[in-house]
Amino acid sequence: MEKRHDVLSIRNLSSLATPEGFEPRSGVAQGRIRRVSGAAIRIEAGHITFAGTEEEFVRQFGEAPHPGETVVSGLGKTALPGFVDAHTHIPWSGFREGEFNDRLKGQTYAEIAASGGGIVSTVAATRAATLAHLTASVKSRLDLMLLHGTTCCEAKTGYGLQKEAELKQLRALVHGSEGHPVTVEMTALPGHEVPLECRGDAQQKAAYIDECCNEILPALAAEGARFVDVFCETGVFDLAESRRILSAGKSCGLVPRLHADELTPLGGAELAAEIGAISADHLLFITRAGIEAMARSGVIATLLPGTSVFLRMNRYAPARDLIAAGIPVAVATDCNPGSSYTESLPAVAFFATIGMGLTVEETLTAITLNAAASLGMADERGSIEPHKAGDVVLIDAPSLEHLVYHYGVNPVSDVVVNGRLVVSSGRRLL
Amino acid sequence: MEKRHDVLSIRNLSSLATPEGFEPRSGVAQGRIRRVSGAAIRIEAGHITFAGTEEEFVRQFGEAPHPGETVVSGLGKTALPGFVDAHTHIPWSGFREGEFNDRLKGQTYAEIAASGGGIVSTVAATRAATLAHLTASVKSRLDLMLLHGTTCCEAKTGYGLQKEAELKQLRALVHGSEGHPVTVEMTALPGHEVPLECRGDAQQKAAYIDECCNEILPALAAEGARFVDVFCETGVFDLAESRRILSAGKSCGLVPRLHADELTPLGGAELAAEIGAISADHLLFITRAGIEAMARSGVIATLLPGTSVFLRMNRYAPARDLIAAGIPVAVATDCNPGSSYTESLPAVAFFATIGMGLTVEETLTAITLNAAASLGMADERGSIEPHKAGDVVLIDAPSLEHLVYHYGVNPVSDVVVNGRLVVSSGRRLL
Repeated sequence: MEKRHDVLSIRNLSSLATPEGFEPRSGVAQGRIRRVSGAAIRIEAGHITFAGTEEEFVRQFGEAPHPGETVVSGLGKTALPGFVDAHTHIPWSGFREGEFNDRLKGQTYAEIAASGGGIVSTVAATRAATLAHLTASVKSRLDLMLLHGTTCCEAKTGYGLQKEAELKQLRALVHGSEGHPVTVEMTALPGHEVPLECRGDAQQKAAYIDECCNEILPALAAEGARFVDVFCETGVFDLAESRRILSAGKSCGLVPRLHADELTPLGGAELAAEIGAISADHLLFITRAGIEAMARSGVIATLLPGTSVFLRMNRYAPARDLIAAGIPVAVATDCNPGSSYTESLPAVAFFATIGMGLTVEETLTAITLNAAASLGMADERGSIEPHKAGDVVLIDAPSLEHLVYHYGVNPVSDVVVNGRLVVSSGRRLL
Repeated sequence: MEKRHDVLSIRNLSSLATPEGFEPRSGVAQGRIRRVSGAAIRIEAGHITFAGTEEEFVRQFGEAPHPGETVVSGLGKTALPGFVDAHTHIPWSGFREGEFNDRLKGQTYAEIAASGGGIVSTVAATRAATLAHLTASVKSRLDLMLLHGTTCCEAKTGYGLQKEAELKQLRALVHGSEGHPVTVEMTALPGHEVPLECRGDAQQKAAYIDECCNEILPALAAEGARFVDVFCETGVFDLAESRRILSAGKSCGLVPRLHADELTPLGGAELAAEIGAISADHLLFITRAGIEAMARSGVIATLLPGTSVFLRMNRYAPARDLIAAGIPVAVATDCNPGSSYTESLPAVAFFATIGMGLTVEETLTAITLNAAASLGMADERGSIEPHKAGDVVLIDAPSLEHLVYHYGVNPVSDVVVNGRLVVSSGRRLL
């Protein structure tokens, strides 16, 4: 009981930087950031009650800490909202580090797939893994995420591609996040690929889609999935198939989001708008019509620049065009073993600036408030504002810019989740 | 006395990966790496005495540790040679994070320079800084380097551009590295830029070059600099001026290395060959003739792919052509506040693969043995071989590939320097 009345204050910050006030449909001006120099934050019973200047803090609450108040020193540091990673595939088994090197040595993706590599190998390893092993993997990935400032993430199934294995992935997320400071929002993605055993046969593929719609999605929804996703792509699930899977998910109460226009301009963005998806992701090949459809319908664009880099695609999603069209842009890691193996949002934020040309302010919005909005939680998380959950990240630097400017190292020193200090000086406390 | 007879063993490693046997002139086949699965390493009195299989280790030394022997568990880990960062500018004051964001907002380098930004601002801040402040900066950068696996680095002056300020930078390196596990090799770089006060006036520039040759270089050499460097570039120091500065350095016993063909194909690579430089660095615009000259003369190419990324240059040095020509390629961070603010060689190694197309094996050679060779210490460091210094890095992964495959996070868990464990589980011990 006492715990709910805990007070945590972060004092004498060099600065504070946060987006504010996401509006459904119009989002928030992507680069509009509130900056406070010489700042302080107060969190009571898990929620932010004050975010302003140190001076104002002292005026309201006095200089000395109250009895029972935890004080975190912000000296030399900058406070940002807890990062939200809106697109990950963390429950998996088996690494594909050899493939990474094979591609550098000139092998094509088709050659790698022909020799048993690619997503097929992850599916085989994940199907073979025990729940305990998968749970431990999830836990260790959440640990790394937290150390890099992520306090909330989305995570997908999609390496099971059969009912029991998809459920095993979901349960690994449930068990792995139990008691963990990182909040996990789960997405059902049995439509990540056509299972190997159903390929090259239209009837078998149709039967798998039936199974997704009638069996797998309801089962995943019943065990806690909140979103439904599909890989809408040439050679995987076409528009009609994707529409069917997403619609079936909606019928189970799942909110649609999708892998859209990643490798070809198939029209995934338009489908996202049509079906009322909360987010369309990847979007490297989105068309003008797709941009207009998303803007009209208020679909958030979740971009994954780390994947472009990792796969050496020489191409990014047209982030500037999306922002110009008024579409809220989120940025996520895509953490997975084949096309983007990283738990670090700061690392991917660097590519959002360098690769896609987002400003530092736009990037902050993309990994906090807009990402929270893409998970339907803009009212509770994603910014440092009164009434929101007390999720705050401190970077060991005097200003927001250092988040990306000081690249290749982890800038995060402290993480507060729901008003509890869980990472201090780069070390896990709880 | 006892200390010199200390024994440290690393046991039960998942694997070990190292280049071997650098030959002056021909280098080492860039991608030839010795890999041992199930490995162990023994270091006695600071030097490696065994590197092979765990099985062979047990045969030679028995299963149980000897009295006084320190045993480090390599379970689940991969041992690599201590990383060598062969090109850094770490003694500086003042950050340029605003410039980073201004460039994203569309400002050109010329506009930034016109408003007092660019290298001029670093020179002003470094001149104004106290020795104590600079020393503390050096120390904190060496600390970060060490945590990312660097056990030896090169570091340049070049933000003083006047005798006292250049000496202050050098002294900051001497004091900052005193007792620090990272070995620092110092480079005199008064020819980093034309001082603001000497620009636009040929006579003043000539006078500054005279001062470099007659005053500053001898003073820096007398206080411990080992190399001389110059920014040989259109609009900075031309070929004749660069030749003069490097020759003057040679006369003081300094070994030449240079910033060559970074922004324009001026012929810096050819100058490096002509003057007998140990390394030519950057090389984004090296010509065919430059490659041939370097190959003939045995100049090492030190490439800085992080800088290409940071500056959004859409261009890298032609690493594959250099390797094809038989030139040993090293890769370094270029750590500096304007064009590459990172202390992490693993981060830059990722760009060596992704950006320049080096294989993982070639990249390992580039950040260890070839980098050591570019600092004239291939006989003592840069590989895990008997008789070499006991500098070993453990990454928390089963194979070498994870060094770059698991990007955006620090893969280094343990660092051994001269046979002493100085970083354990990502935390500094000594």
